[in-house]
Amino acid sequence: MSIERIVEGLERREPAALARAISLVENQRDGFERLLSHVHAGLGRGGTRRIGITGPPGAGKSTLTERLIQRFRAQDLTVGVVAVDPTSPFTGGALLGDRIRMESAGVDPSVFIRSMATRGAHGGLATTTEEVADLLEAFGFERILIETVGVGQTELDVARTAESTVLVLVPESGDGIQTLKAGVMEIADIYVVNKSDRPGADKLRQEVEVMLGIRRGNAFRHVAPHHTAVAVEGGRGRSRAADGGEWEPPVLAMVASRGDGVDELVAALDRHFVHLQQSGKLAARRRERLAQRTRAVLERAVRQWITEDTRTEQLLAARLDEVADGRRSPYDVAAEILDQVRTGAPR
Amino acid sequence: MSIERIVEGLERREPAALARAISLVENQRDGFERLLSHVHAGLGRGGTRRIGITGPPGAGKSTLTERLIQRFRAQDLTVGVVAVDPTSPFTGGALLGDRIRMESAGVDPSVFIRSMATRGAHGGLATTTEEVADLLEAFGFERILIETVGVGQTELDVARTAESTVLVLVPESGDGIQTLKAGVMEIADIYVVNKSDRPGADKLRQEVEVMLGIRRGNAFRHVAPHHTAVAVEGGRGRSRAADGGEWEPPVLAMVASRGDGVDELVAALDRHFVHLQQSGKLAARRRERLAQRTRAVLERAVRQWITEDTRTEQLLAARLDEVADGRRSPYDVAAEILDQVRTGAPR
Repeated sequence: MSIERIVEGLERREPAALARAISLVENQRDGFERLLSHVHAGLGRGGTRRIGITGPPGAGKSTLTERLIQRFRAQDLTVGVVAVDPTSPFTGGALLGDRIRMESAGVDPSVFIRSMATRGAHGGLATTTEEVADLLEAFGFERILIETVGVGQTELDVARTAESTVLVLVPESGDGIQTLKAGVMEIADIYVVNKSDRPGADKLRQEVEVMLGIRRGNAFRHVAPHHTAVAVEGGRGRSRAADGGEWEPPVLAMVASRGDGVDELVAALDRHFVHLQQSGKLAARRRERLAQRTRAVLERAVRQWITEDTRTEQLLAARLDEVADGRRSPYDVAAEILDQVRTGAPR
Repeated sequence: MSIERIVEGLERREPAALARAISLVENQRDGFERLLSHVHAGLGRGGTRRIGITGPPGAGKSTLTERLIQRFRAQDLTVGVVAVDPTSPFTGGALLGDRIRMESAGVDPSVFIRSMATRGAHGGLATTTEEVADLLEAFGFERILIETVGVGQTELDVARTAESTVLVLVPESGDGIQTLKAGVMEIADIYVVNKSDRPGADKLRQEVEVMLGIRRGNAFRHVAPHHTAVAVEGGRGRSRAADGGEWEPPVLAMVASRGDGVDELVAALDRHFVHLQQSGKLAARRRERLAQRTRAVLERAVRQWITEDTRTEQLLAARLDEVADGRRSPYDVAAEILDQVRTGAPR
């Protein structure tokens, strides 16, 4: 299937074209950047929203994702899901997408779920995820859920390719809260304390609020310890300095398995999107993401150029004996190779 | 402290010089590559062995590390530990190094433990870890333990900078085994089933052996379900095709909290080191690691060059409007920038 044919197929909403396109991009096969370049022209027209969902293993993210899919479908919105698991099955169990596919959403043609492996995506997982989301947008999905397991740097980078980021926590993760660096936590636009019917849920929510600097005094709070199913939001008084605006990340209580609190999450997502639009941040963030993407694509291209430059491997091979016996260091040799590549690269 | 002064200090085994050196390398401060280049000349002289320890959170890696430290100290060997946690505290609890430091090993000046954060180490964590291990070797530590939480690609890359890699599993991780891709599991030289006094330990060990392709018929096996404290190894009959040799990764039972099975692990590590020496793989692997390191250093240098090339950001800024409104794509612009950087870079 030619690139032109795939582009046409995406416009006609042919599932086979979408599958082909994703596989091309995931594996970085010949022409994948040309495909993405074609697709780019039609993006950002406003009908699609991207929502990132992240959190530690076992926080109930796939259940929550399933609930969100149901809510969006009830609004007659089409939904694409990219499920990324940068960890092995050891920590995360089966891939979310596989699980969801087998359950309720699997039969609905307006829902598309793709699990992404991380093989070969060294340092570029966020970029590849964003590129796959581009394809889903080009295909016409109105809500794109980007789900990732874990809260390391990679996972956060992935989740932050979305317009709205949801961090899902559970009471069990409470012990770790005090040791968290603010940098790790302050990435989300919306916080969800899932499994809020369990002991410790209220304490966790309070800790998150304290950490976010939400002032208690002003807060409207509905406290119903141990069986909270009502969305609770922190009060005013806090700005996200980085954005210069005044979105105050709500901390929502949820029991996703029962569906409790999901409507509140959908409402918070809507409010956040309106906030992004009205504050001008939607366009600003998109520009910043496109700049970042361009840098990432450039870095990928440079890496490829250096790798494929025949002198790189030749020089490396020629110097390896000296490096192994200590006469030269990897740093000397790398500097020498870079110098040669820089000065001698033919156009 | 000048680079020369730090190099001297390392040779004189001054703790302050080591701390300074590690901080320089971790933060990639001016001169860090010059320092590493100096240090490189004295490495690989044979007295130091590097041991990687990895596994899912909760597998008891820090307890095992502590036991190994005790055994090595009993042999009067000095021990350096680099504890790398690429995940946040959510999944892994407190950093291993911090925990160990507070316990038995903390008072012994022949033991040095360094916890490494992963901030900023995008895609380069394995390289930085290896560089810190170089410093520990230059300082004269005879055993270097490189411990990392998790079994994703990053963690495996980190663990594999060592000469011998130990993968620690627990019965609780058993459910995931069948879904494991061989590529993830076949990275270790030695497998440890920790907490072997728990139900399911025997089954897990068998599953790992099956997965490794160890033939049951020939195996010497000591089976003592639920309270195994004896090292059990798989039999002959399997080759690690990738190495072309015949090391058969043993699958050891252990209860690290009681110290059971630790002697067997130390013995297996010794056997593995002898195997590496006699088969010539020790030198071959070192060469391959040095080649990889040179490539990684080159990539880092290229990234820095591109980032600091003023035209990169200028061109990006000039094109961003067109990218945002869809007239151009990130791919076009990246190609244009690469072209300019390649052809116009001054020596």
